[in-house]
Amino acid sequence: MYETIKTELEDGILTLTLNRPDKMNAYTEKMNEELLDFYKNVNKDDAVRVIVVTGSGRAFCAGMDLSEGGSTFSSEQSAEDYRDLGGQVSLQVYEVNKPIIAAINGPAVGIGMTMTLPMDIRIVKKDAKIGFVFGRRGIGPEAGSGWFLPRLVGIGKALEWTLTGRYIPTGEAVSSGLVQYESDEPLAKAYEIAREIAENTAATSNSFTRQLLWKMLGQDHPEASHLIESKFLHWAGQNADANEGIQSFVEKRPAEFPMKASGLPEFFK
Amino acid sequence: MYETIKTELEDGILTLTLNRPDKMNAYTEKMNEELLDFYKNVNKDDAVRVIVVTGSGRAFCAGMDLSEGGSTFSSEQSAEDYRDLGGQVSLQVYEVNKPIIAAINGPAVGIGMTMTLPMDIRIVKKDAKIGFVFGRRGIGPEAGSGWFLPRLVGIGKALEWTLTGRYIPTGEAVSSGLVQYESDEPLAKAYEIAREIAENTAATSNSFTRQLLWKMLGQDHPEASHLIESKFLHWAGQNADANEGIQSFVEKRPAEFPMKASGLPEFFK
Amino acid sequence: MYETIKTELEDGILTLTLNRPDKMNAYTEKMNEELLDFYKNVNKDDAVRVIVVTGSGRAFCAGMDLSEGGSTFSSEQSAEDYRDLGGQVSLQVYEVNKPIIAAINGPAVGIGMTMTLPMDIRIVKKDAKIGFVFGRRGIGPEAGSGWFLPRLVGIGKALEWTLTGRYIPTGEAVSSGLVQYESDEPLAKAYEIAREIAENTAATSNSFTRQLLWKMLGQDHPEASHLIESKFLHWAGQNADANEGIQSFVEKRPAEFPMKASGLPEFFK
Repeated sequence: MYETIKTELEDGILTLTLNRPDKMNAYTEKMNEELLDFYKNVNKDDAVRVIVVTGSGRAFCAGMDLSEGGSTFSSEQSAEDYRDLGGQVSLQVYEVNKPIIAAINGPAVGIGMTMTLPMDIRIVKKDAKIGFVFGRRGIGPEAGSGWFLPRLVGIGKALEWTLTGRYIPTGEAVSSGLVQYESDEPLAKAYEIAREIAENTAATSNSFTRQLLWKMLGQDHPEASHLIESKFLHWAGQNADANEGIQSFVEKRPAEFPMKASGLPEFFK
Repeated sequence: MYETIKTELEDGILTLTLNRPDKMNAYTEKMNEELLDFYKNVNKDDAVRVIVVTGSGRAFCAGMDLSEGGSTFSSEQSAEDYRDLGGQVSLQVYEVNKPIIAAINGPAVGIGMTMTLPMDIRIVKKDAKIGFVFGRRGIGPEAGSGWFLPRLVGIGKALEWTLTGRYIPTGEAVSSGLVQYESDEPLAKAYEIAREIAENTAATSNSFTRQLLWKMLGQDHPEASHLIESKFLHWAGQNADANEGIQSFVEKRPAEFPMKASGLPEFFK
Repeated sequence: MYETIKTELEDGILTLTLNRPDKMNAYTEKMNEELLDFYKNVNKDDAVRVIVVTGSGRAFCAGMDLSEGGSTFSSEQSAEDYRDLGGQVSLQVYEVNKPIIAAINGPAVGIGMTMTLPMDIRIVKKDAKIGFVFGRRGIGPEAGSGWFLPRLVGIGKALEWTLTGRYIPTGEAVSSGLVQYESDEPLAKAYEIAREIAENTAATSNSFTRQLLWKMLGQDHPEASHLIESKFLHWAGQNADANEGIQSFVEKRPAEFPMKASGLPEFFK
């Protein structure tokens, strides 16, 4: 059992809740440890079709817990060994093979915002306080956001937000592509999308698709994508999900995909 | 002569029409073969200044022809040898040295949509059904779209669309950058842009520009672009198109560029 | 002292003015030399917190000075040795470690526009004439824009604008992300943002952030960003700016960051 997060599975949708509501879900070493544990193990669990991440209480995550004051980022470790907490989790999220939806239900600053960048779909509570405030604290982008943010919103917005450290109006977050939706009920919207995915798409397809899109960001030439797409399609053409997907389409009925995500071979070694 | 596509050249604008109107221009092996043949040869033809791609009848392309049902993607070939049809064409389009405009005149799903991603400008018929529906058929992104799509619309939209497989309202397609325009008359709009290019710009410039922008996507450092831009400018400075471009500007008259695209040296080996 | 540009420092904000107002600040070899000199030396000057670039008179920069007519781009140098002027400056701007804001106060075409792409924030005068007109002059994208432009606005807009060479309405420039703001008073808006940065963020943070975001564009995997972010955070955690940033936050008072940008170690060799 976890102390700082909780998980709940229903109808294939796993809700991961940041759970320190009296601290606005501020990020701690313990939370980092538990998130790492969760993300390391979730790929194996075929019962989980989609992950929804949200916060308990009125905040999503108010950033790093600063209760240790100025020494928050000082470390016993050497410069060679030290690894940013948020970045450890981001790299693990990057390897997840299920769709992840962030329901940003309230304030999300610093790591509260950067932790959502390696997720797939972000929905923000209308008018919530969000921003990349690092420069105003004398630190800098973390959790891999130096890599993730420009690939989401373009280098222009990414620079403006991180250099000024200003709060981002949620309307601007939508129009720039930082989040896909603003909503008065971000968790309800997240579940709506999660159900749309779980009910209509194949788990094998989603597992392949999530890995493909993220990993092709690092490839220099479209041929890399072509080669791996070809391997997947050849495999899919001999397996039950594609058969059902096409038969159901031809027969104009809803598809009932028989396979599990764990049935997908490792295409991305 | 082609069976599944047709081509028509007028005033430097080549119209390539997907031509199986009774099947909503669904994609077949034969169409793939003919598209490959077309794109392989079009670079040599200096009479072609701009390419406009559209569909015959009410659809652009309804996706893969599924008349073989569940076995559509099964293959006699080995996993090593199999190559996705759409990806073969996308890689060929990536090498074309003339501007390509997609006039998406009606429904475009699956490969109907992904085939347009390596083109340069997309115009969609207002309210046409478009989407990346692969997950709903138990398959995944193809035609190199794992590489092309995030570079067009950012990783966020790319993930949302491919993971849900939902249809994309054409207004959202415009605001996200997936298409440049929605129009009640996409073909007319495509011709308008094609004429603007053919009448005002140099064929050598367009050939260089198209290759430069696509290929610099795969470079890690702006110096790669600087070096190749320098080679081109040095060459251009000694040739007739730049001379005419600048003289006509100084003399405030329309330019009449004398050179052909085939006059451009190979800068992108 | 410079002939074609001028610089003025006030309250940590350095204003760099393109200063050939009778020629609409058209770009010359001399201007290139002076810009190179400026950008090469500005990193060392801790008095400069933010750079604002603008044009003297009614234009920002009307492009290359074409007073030599058709021979503008011909060169005494060999094809191997020739280096595009604008690209030399862009590569230098890419190495600057202070935020750079372009106040595009009037027409900006050709190099007038491409020179702003490696800057961080762009504000354009409402309805100013801007565009990437190279194809209409028989030349092609320069100043590294083949690399910079698609990373700012996506490959679709980049291709459309460079292939047509058309002028870009300033509203479209905003919605596409080419510029962050349009304004009747672009210089005033630039100063507003410059002050927001100088008064609220740490110089060490900005120096790190600017380098991080630009340089991670060239990395294939988020781990590259994680490793360098970790090194920076470890360093910051032992230094005065992060201490002040966090203490001031905890104490709910404005931060007074004590460090200089030159205090930041070289993380990006």
